[in-house]
Amino acid sequence: MSEPFRPGGDGVRTRLFQIIFESDTPLAKGFDIALIAVILASVAIVLLDSIAAWEAAYGEWFYWLEWGFTLIFTVELALRVYCLEKPWRYLRSFYGIVDVLAVLPTWLMLILPGSWETLVIVRLLRVLRIFRVLRLMQFVSESRLLLDALRRSVRQIILFFFSIFMVVTIFAAVMYTIESPEAGFTSIPMSIYWAIVSLTTVGYGDIVPMTSLGKAITVMLMLIGYSIIAVPTGVFSAQVIRAIREERYSDEACPGCGHDKHERRARYCLLCGTWLDETSADPRLAAAGRYGEPGSDE
Amino acid sequence: MSEPFRPGGDGVRTRLFQIIFESDTPLAKGFDIALIAVILASVAIVLLDSIAAWEAAYGEWFYWLEWGFTLIFTVELALRVYCLEKPWRYLRSFYGIVDVLAVLPTWLMLILPGSWETLVIVRLLRVLRIFRVLRLMQFVSESRLLLDALRRSVRQIILFFFSIFMVVTIFAAVMYTIESPEAGFTSIPMSIYWAIVSLTTVGYGDIVPMTSLGKAITVMLMLIGYSIIAVPTGVFSAQVIRAIREERYSDEACPGCGHDKHERRARYCLLCGTWLDETSADPRLAAAGRYGEPGSDE
Amino acid sequence: MSEPFRPGGDGVRTRLFQIIFESDTPLAKGFDIALIAVILASVAIVLLDSIAAWEAAYGEWFYWLEWGFTLIFTVELALRVYCLEKPWRYLRSFYGIVDVLAVLPTWLMLILPGSWETLVIVRLLRVLRIFRVLRLMQFVSESRLLLDALRRSVRQIILFFFSIFMVVTIFAAVMYTIESPEAGFTSIPMSIYWAIVSLTTVGYGDIVPMTSLGKAITVMLMLIGYSIIAVPTGVFSAQVIRAIREERYSDEACPGCGHDKHERRARYCLLCGTWLDETSADPRLAAAGRYGEPGSDE
Amino acid sequence: MSEPFRPGGDGVRTRLFQIIFESDTPLAKGFDIALIAVILASVAIVLLDSIAAWEAAYGEWFYWLEWGFTLIFTVELALRVYCLEKPWRYLRSFYGIVDVLAVLPTWLMLILPGSWETLVIVRLLRVLRIFRVLRLMQFVSESRLLLDALRRSVRQIILFFFSIFMVVTIFAAVMYTIESPEAGFTSIPMSIYWAIVSLTTVGYGDIVPMTSLGKAITVMLMLIGYSIIAVPTGVFSAQVIRAIREERYSDEACPGCGHDKHERRARYCLLCGTWLDETSADPRLAAAGRYGEPGSDE
Repeated sequence: MSEPFRPGGDGVRTRLFQIIFESDTPLAKGFDIALIAVILASVAIVLLDSIAAWEAAYGEWFYWLEWGFTLIFTVELALRVYCLEKPWRYLRSFYGIVDVLAVLPTWLMLILPGSWETLVIVRLLRVLRIFRVLRLMQFVSESRLLLDALRRSVRQIILFFFSIFMVVTIFAAVMYTIESPEAGFTSIPMSIYWAIVSLTTVGYGDIVPMTSLGKAITVMLMLIGYSIIAVPTGVFSAQVIRAIREERYSDEACPGCGHDKHERRARYCLLCGTWLDETSADPRLAAAGRYGEPGSDE
Repeated sequence: MSEPFRPGGDGVRTRLFQIIFESDTPLAKGFDIALIAVILASVAIVLLDSIAAWEAAYGEWFYWLEWGFTLIFTVELALRVYCLEKPWRYLRSFYGIVDVLAVLPTWLMLILPGSWETLVIVRLLRVLRIFRVLRLMQFVSESRLLLDALRRSVRQIILFFFSIFMVVTIFAAVMYTIESPEAGFTSIPMSIYWAIVSLTTVGYGDIVPMTSLGKAITVMLMLIGYSIIAVPTGVFSAQVIRAIREERYSDEACPGCGHDKHERRARYCLLCGTWLDETSADPRLAAAGRYGEPGSDE
Repeated sequence: MSEPFRPGGDGVRTRLFQIIFESDTPLAKGFDIALIAVILASVAIVLLDSIAAWEAAYGEWFYWLEWGFTLIFTVELALRVYCLEKPWRYLRSFYGIVDVLAVLPTWLMLILPGSWETLVIVRLLRVLRIFRVLRLMQFVSESRLLLDALRRSVRQIILFFFSIFMVVTIFAAVMYTIESPEAGFTSIPMSIYWAIVSLTTVGYGDIVPMTSLGKAITVMLMLIGYSIIAVPTGVFSAQVIRAIREERYSDEACPGCGHDKHERRARYCLLCGTWLDETSADPRLAAAGRYGEPGSDE
Repeated sequence: MSEPFRPGGDGVRTRLFQIIFESDTPLAKGFDIALIAVILASVAIVLLDSIAAWEAAYGEWFYWLEWGFTLIFTVELALRVYCLEKPWRYLRSFYGIVDVLAVLPTWLMLILPGSWETLVIVRLLRVLRIFRVLRLMQFVSESRLLLDALRRSVRQIILFFFSIFMVVTIFAAVMYTIESPEAGFTSIPMSIYWAIVSLTTVGYGDIVPMTSLGKAITVMLMLIGYSIIAVPTGVFSAQVIRAIREERYSDEACPGCGHDKHERRARYCLLCGTWLDETSADPRLAAAGRYGEPGSDE
């Protein structure tokens, strides 16, 4: 999207930058893998620490491990800031904010005891940073394929959610009128919750229709939900197929003969030989000019 | 579908029409957005008003906001009627009826206190009008793509629902025979409700099989439901793919050489140069006639 | 599949046959629609009759309506048998058996009172006959498309169900070992029932894991179920796409030049002009033989 | 994958090998079918034996049947080992281990009474061996198609599960903060269990949100789960379509003219006649060399 980050001038900072921010060298790949491991481990500690029995048994272990991870992340953040040309730009970026939030809560605990709970959310946000690692690894092309298909599907998906909103609101209002509050339909928002539970085929069963008419309407809602899942699936499938094809073939028509299925690497039309790259001159014409017409400006 | 609405004659009415019924000018787009906002806000008030605690706390606010929205919708409806050439045709159309129903209930409340409940449904119907706004906006082509795919899928989808009706009725009748009324299978219609809850993979759990045989049959029903979701999805996916392709390419074969993948804008066959537009004459032939054969009637 | 039924000889029987067994004439289409209506009404009576309150209130009405429908179906069956050349072949066919079973139970009631219950199942089997009506109507081509896609998908779907059977059996055996009978895992078959309820994302909630390990394994099973729905959907989508394409195009290669995308109606290769129909002689060659080579056997 | 197994030298062992390890002859196919039947029957006994009432009634029958199946499997394993050139390689392979584990538990029962329970799991592992039988039968090509599509989808599917892990962890942490332990959200791992139950649309209903805010967040999670099912389905559909097409056509471009849709069996480009097989010489050129240029080294 935006301009990539750049290392600060000297050799040590540039080498650090290559290890931390890039993933071309074996050392940089090793750093990525180690970082993923530490992040997963640190998330695991947060998860286990939330179980009362484990907290009682291993609370002190978790405490020191938590500090260990915080120190690792702090050092890593310091190195990131140190090796960048414009550290403030990084700190104001999404990943920079997540980096800071990953270490801030534990440090705040020294000053503000009892803020342990808020740490949970902040730490989990850090998990999102793994996406960057993924993006730098082998998953580039596939990820781009999915994102491309998603971007092309987004209008139909919005229209789809708009339709769902209509259907759900109308069914919820109808059921609110038909069913009694004792069945759980205490308000229209509660009915909307029930309608989405039913339409998405989740079906908790915490709110179910009690009357015959309510059950008949529920049947309609469930069949709608069961069928319209075909809409996002169909749209997304079509776009993935298009994205896979376009990864290899260009859809642009040849200016000479109209043929429109050339491989991306093609430079000449495979049917009529016309030069396809409109942003530059045909080297054959340039060659013809150079040798065949003496006195040209080349 | 039908003939579009037209503005009444003079300048003020035509300008009003352009703002309210079209969306080409900035003012018209602003009107559309404001209308969506007012409709959503008015729906939100209805939703919140249905929560007993909120009604008790903010009931009076909701009452006056409700009147405010009703006045806005009434004025808007009056303007719509005023600026149209044939106002009665609009009032008898789907959107016109919804417009009237959006304001009628609140006005009826002045005469008939206690009819507040029916207002809920009527107001929600008004939400459907947002579709018109969507249709007028950027979503045109995508929406057409979905509708085109749906229209082509409709026969298979009907056949699909017909099959579901068969399966569900037979399983319901079998389960009604096997399971006891205590398990919830009190009648065949109730068993059909259970069968659809199971087939659509909603699975509330309010009615579940108790006997071993009933569970074995349920397993079959659930596997059927889990598999046949592939049918509408497959049909719709295929039609979305076809609709996307046909948006760009025509499937009609060239009368000269049989080639059948021309861009929609193509006028000559890209392989043999035959004139493709069968509804008019080839301008090349016309030109040949004009210059090469003097004395022709051109 | 098999040889179609044929009318018996004389004019009245042939005309009856055209009305009952075909659907080309307006009278025959009217008969089809009337038959669907009577069948649906007769099913509706069975459904409503199974609700205790309705049976108590309208039991006598249902009784006489039931006899009315039975008489209609009996007369219809008699006419079918009368107008056919080989009535026994029809009575031994699937539809013939269903026809007999549709009227038999009510007649048996005169002799064996109390057999009312078994009638329910038999009557519902009759609903299946509507498929024949559908097949005779406009739905022919679409239905063939779906059946063709299903037939091509059947091996992968079988393999898919085989995989599900593996997964479900293994998870059920593991959960039977981990979870206690109090949680509902009283036997491996019961665990299989639970596993299919979970894998198909139905999720009744009548049997749920209680232990942490059981919940972790359940998470795996649910994610498997959520993902592998892509398998039948993907296979079926691909086959529907192929079926739609093949409805218009033949995949057979031209014996002359290898081009393999001809419209079904094509008789000559569109690239090299080779005669495509291998079951008959090229009329051009025949013509050449007739006129160019005197003395040929034509 | 690896080198196939080979029979030991003499005639009896080779014939045994053909029956047990191959499936070309009628005898070998009969052996395969008999083996599937015995395996399914032996699994069925394990299933039924786990039902307390059946065990009480038919426990002795099950015991002797169990011994019967164990003897059959033991003899079969002995024959497999006997007829192979390298029996140890087989015993160390996946299928060999499963074979041993299929008979080991029952034999261990003679020595270690009470180890009956562990037998259940081991026996079920044996079910997996049916895949080999399937692979040897008619299902070869389809199975390869599915595996090929799966292999190509695997990166996107991994990315998909990675996204699910993100979504689920974040929603679980948020819900753990919002909802009370009384509603079932006793720890973050328990919240993750709930989040996956909701996202996969299973919806047991054993843990459901109690607060309004929790329900609003649940609605978001359910809509996400309902929509992103399109991702694996879309990716897999696209890959099945590609696999079906590639089964027949090669995507490699002709070195002569760039045409890139040749049947797999094609040896010359159908447009320009260029020799397509880059791993060998064009026989036409060789022929030209042999006859046209005397003195060549051929």
